Amino acid sequence: MTEFADLHRPGDPLFLPNAWDFASAAWLARAGFRAIGTTSLGVAAAAGIPDGLGATREPTTQLVNRLSSLPCLVTVDIEGGFSEDIGSVTGLVKELSEAGAVGVNIEDGRGNSRLADVEVQAELIAAIKAATPGVFVNARTDTYWLYPQQPDLDETIARTKAYEAAGADGIFVPGLIEYPDIVAVASATRLPLNVLFLPGRRTVSQLAALGVARISTGSLLFRAGLQAALDTAIAVRNDREPAGKLPSYQDINSLSA
Amino acid sequence: MTEFADLHRPGDPLFLPNAWDFASAAWLARAGFRAIGTTSLGVAAAAGIPDGLGATREPTTQLVNRLSSLPCLVTVDIEGGFSEDIGSVTGLVKELSEAGAVGVNIEDGRGNSRLADVEVQAELIAAIKAATPGVFVNARTDTYWLYPQQPDLDETIARTKAYEAAGADGIFVPGLIEYPDIVAVASATRLPLNVLFLPGRRTVSQLAALGVARISTGSLLFRAGLQAALDTAIAVRNDREPAGKLPSYQDINSLSA
Repeated sequence: MTEFADLHRPGDPLFLPNAWDFASAAWLARAGFRAIGTTSLGVAAAAGIPDGLGATREPTTQLVNRLSSLPCLVTVDIEGGFSEDIGSVTGLVKELSEAGAVGVNIEDGRGNSRLADVEVQAELIAAIKAATPGVFVNARTDTYWLYPQQPDLDETIARTKAYEAAGADGIFVPGLIEYPDIVAVASATRLPLNVLFLPGRRTVSQLAALGVARISTGSLLFRAGLQAALDTAIAVRNDREPAGKLPSYQDINSLSA
Repeated sequence: MTEFADLHRPGDPLFLPNAWDFASAAWLARAGFRAIGTTSLGVAAAAGIPDGLGATREPTTQLVNRLSSLPCLVTVDIEGGFSEDIGSVTGLVKELSEAGAVGVNIEDGRGNSRLADVEVQAELIAAIKAATPGVFVNARTDTYWLYPQQPDLDETIARTKAYEAAGADGIFVPGLIEYPDIVAVASATRLPLNVLFLPGRRTVSQLAALGVARISTGSLLFRAGLQAALDTAIAVRNDREPAGKLPSYQDINSLSA
């Protein structure tokens, strides 16, 4: 078992913050986070690209290459693989692995609107594991994310089992937040269950108690940082002092490898 | 006079927030800021490059190309021009202007440690104005920034006059914060005076009352956002709710052109 896989413990979950550029990853690593994910929304927005439409491949690989100097484990949000071509996706994961990534998230949502066929997605997962067996493949299903008003628990469990059979190392169900649903998915698979932290819903301790093995923040940190930057600008313009702690210029400039 | 130049009014200064990526610029523009600068520290740190050493040229031009879709005026921090070759610097400013930038900051600090000869810097400013007369050239002198313990007011005024004679459109003295020094520089030149907002020192209104014509935030917003992202990660990990407002996923994803 790799160090990264070993961090996934049901009941004592890996808390995984998500970065979007070199500085955010380096700042999290310096604060002691051993493992860091990327957020495709953050990477896309930083580059001015719409999320979920495949255009984020280049900034994603560029970012992961930059993160190789950091003393933390990195797992990469590759959306649906940025391509419908299996060879392109397995090639991407190989490239990310060679750049130092220990894991990827591969989702069955396509273009922010529909789910890939479960057989197609299982085949994709199996192909990634065959090409890069050492990479922790976190299979994300968007059954809840794309359909928050009518999530399908049975379909979620069916997909979880299919992705497990295809060789996935973990299952990620963003939007899964109700107690009975979390317990149902966690108990239907031997894979460690990853859920997304959602503000105002369940705390990390509550999710841990339900058997969750990994809790990620998705785009939360990116959105919080962006708003704090704007709030700071507005405060200063209105003759108020900026709120909160501030790293120094030297703190930031010392982050670079 | 261009719209951007006209925003520089002694006593009623342009408040210029500085962005480091597409999302931060788009978020500031959406909040109503008419003009936005870039911060070389932020651009460098986001890319994992040390600031002030010239390597930030490529991410800077890439960023400015992305910002062309935004409904705001953009002025670009080009450090010392990223090169000792005048033709390279004038070519860069031409490229940025063609990408839509209305201004640049060109500094006489070199490599975070020394000042360029005043004649060399004046020649550089004159060359930029000759090649791209429509670009607002904000001549930054690092007499205070590089020597905070022993800033030289006479040298600052001498450089201000030299850069004004070379054709600069504005003068920027980061680190200039004491009342008599601000008044001395402002009254020694016809150029609009730009100072850097420094937390805990003078408010925007106080700087305005001294005759300042532009107040920029430098890397402040970048540093505030980075810390807020980390604070959010730590809060969530420790079972607390994230503090502050949060833009939604849709808010962010709608920023892209």
